[in-house]
Amino acid sequence: MIRLDLIGIGTGNPEHLTVQAIRTMNGADLILLPRKGSEKSGLLDVRRTICDAVLTQPVRVVEFDLPTRDAGGEYINAVQSWHNAIAAAWAKQMALHLPEGGRLALLVWGDPSLYDSTLRIAGRLIGGGMAIDIRVVPGISSLHALTAAHAIPLNQLAEAVTITTGRLLRAHGWPGDATSIVVMLDEGGAFQTLDGSEFEIWWGACLGMEHEALISGRLAQIGDDIMQRRSALRQEHGWIMDIYLLRKIA
Amino acid sequence: MIRLDLIGIGTGNPEHLTVQAIRTMNGADLILLPRKGSEKSGLLDVRRTICDAVLTQPVRVVEFDLPTRDAGGEYINAVQSWHNAIAAAWAKQMALHLPEGGRLALLVWGDPSLYDSTLRIAGRLIGGGMAIDIRVVPGISSLHALTAAHAIPLNQLAEAVTITTGRLLRAHGWPGDATSIVVMLDEGGAFQTLDGSEFEIWWGACLGMEHEALISGRLAQIGDDIMQRRSALRQEHGWIMDIYLLRKIA
Repeated sequence: MIRLDLIGIGTGNPEHLTVQAIRTMNGADLILLPRKGSEKSGLLDVRRTICDAVLTQPVRVVEFDLPTRDAGGEYINAVQSWHNAIAAAWAKQMALHLPEGGRLALLVWGDPSLYDSTLRIAGRLIGGGMAIDIRVVPGISSLHALTAAHAIPLNQLAEAVTITTGRLLRAHGWPGDATSIVVMLDEGGAFQTLDGSEFEIWWGACLGMEHEALISGRLAQIGDDIMQRRSALRQEHGWIMDIYLLRKIA
Repeated sequence: MIRLDLIGIGTGNPEHLTVQAIRTMNGADLILLPRKGSEKSGLLDVRRTICDAVLTQPVRVVEFDLPTRDAGGEYINAVQSWHNAIAAAWAKQMALHLPEGGRLALLVWGDPSLYDSTLRIAGRLIGGGMAIDIRVVPGISSLHALTAAHAIPLNQLAEAVTITTGRLLRAHGWPGDATSIVVMLDEGGAFQTLDGSEFEIWWGACLGMEHEALISGRLAQIGDDIMQRRSALRQEHGWIMDIYLLRKIA
């Protein structure tokens, strides 16, 4: 029997860790850290730093190569195949390092429920017949890291907020009668498909990290600044994660 | 000059506190704890417990009576007047305990950006001419506490999620073409206005606390169970905070 703890670690700032996350990491037998290729080695570095900072118990920390997603083909199918490959990679590490079972912990960026596939991948192992007890430790998501960094509310008073993706915004435009939306997983500038004069934007990249970048204002005036800043950060660090809140100007 | 730290403390579990929250609390000169009347004394108890558990520095902790919201009249107006009264109550405490300025910390349930008015109330003080530097420490919101407790993703793969309120769900029904919504601030059972056969629900109350309650399943089959459980918890504890995720059955 494997107990699998999916631990939200926040967005790169080791101070985002909760007391529960630290306790759970120290209670693990094994922590697996994914290697995602050289251009994303910063992500691995953050996880290593966090382990070094908070582990006070002799927990085994093992790095493994995460399979990469096939760039071609239809999006959903490519993602499904990729998740299967990751599930297989985990199973291999479990067989290798926890042959008698035990407690495995995975450190999940942000919060494990929000645009993260770790829960779905773990579900594949259970679907495949493995005995796994899954627990989730909530974390500071980029949603809350964004609004904290800008010191703004997510929602307007008594109003709703839609969380969506760059892909959906490009494909379907502004969602219905929403007044505020948060866009995640944008490959770059899906907001450029909107009429900039109608919106305000609060953008953040690398939230919580040393090179955190924040820009806010009227979309028409600062959309280009965001694209330039984004591109510069990407060039400098090899990868970038950004997120933004858009509100209709009343 | 006042530095005001709004610190997200999670949903009642002291282990939800982040390293940043604990450091910021210990760096404060003053922490104000609101008294919200006897039936909500549990909320005050949680904040007291948290202060006792994490304060290692000599921080002054002061309790004050929070004004209550006028139950009558139009909702938005009543809320605005209430926020003005709270801003005045804070200003009084600051004048009393930090006449020379300093660092004031407020402990905000969940995350300060999500259906919480602390930021808007602080904005009133700045609008009124006070010199305040506002910082936000993100916290574990009930959104993430709910999905962690049920060990489920918030969003479906590549789909959007709308966060809304019980009031909006009652007034406008299911929002547009949403597939998943999260309902907060429900005074009780706004989901009963929907056709239960079309939805699955993941409900949670008192998340992270000892008496945490979780129910999930097809809405048509468990809607009544949720209402009964909710009413029993309210009777036992005098107050309740609940939240739920609804998904359209495909």
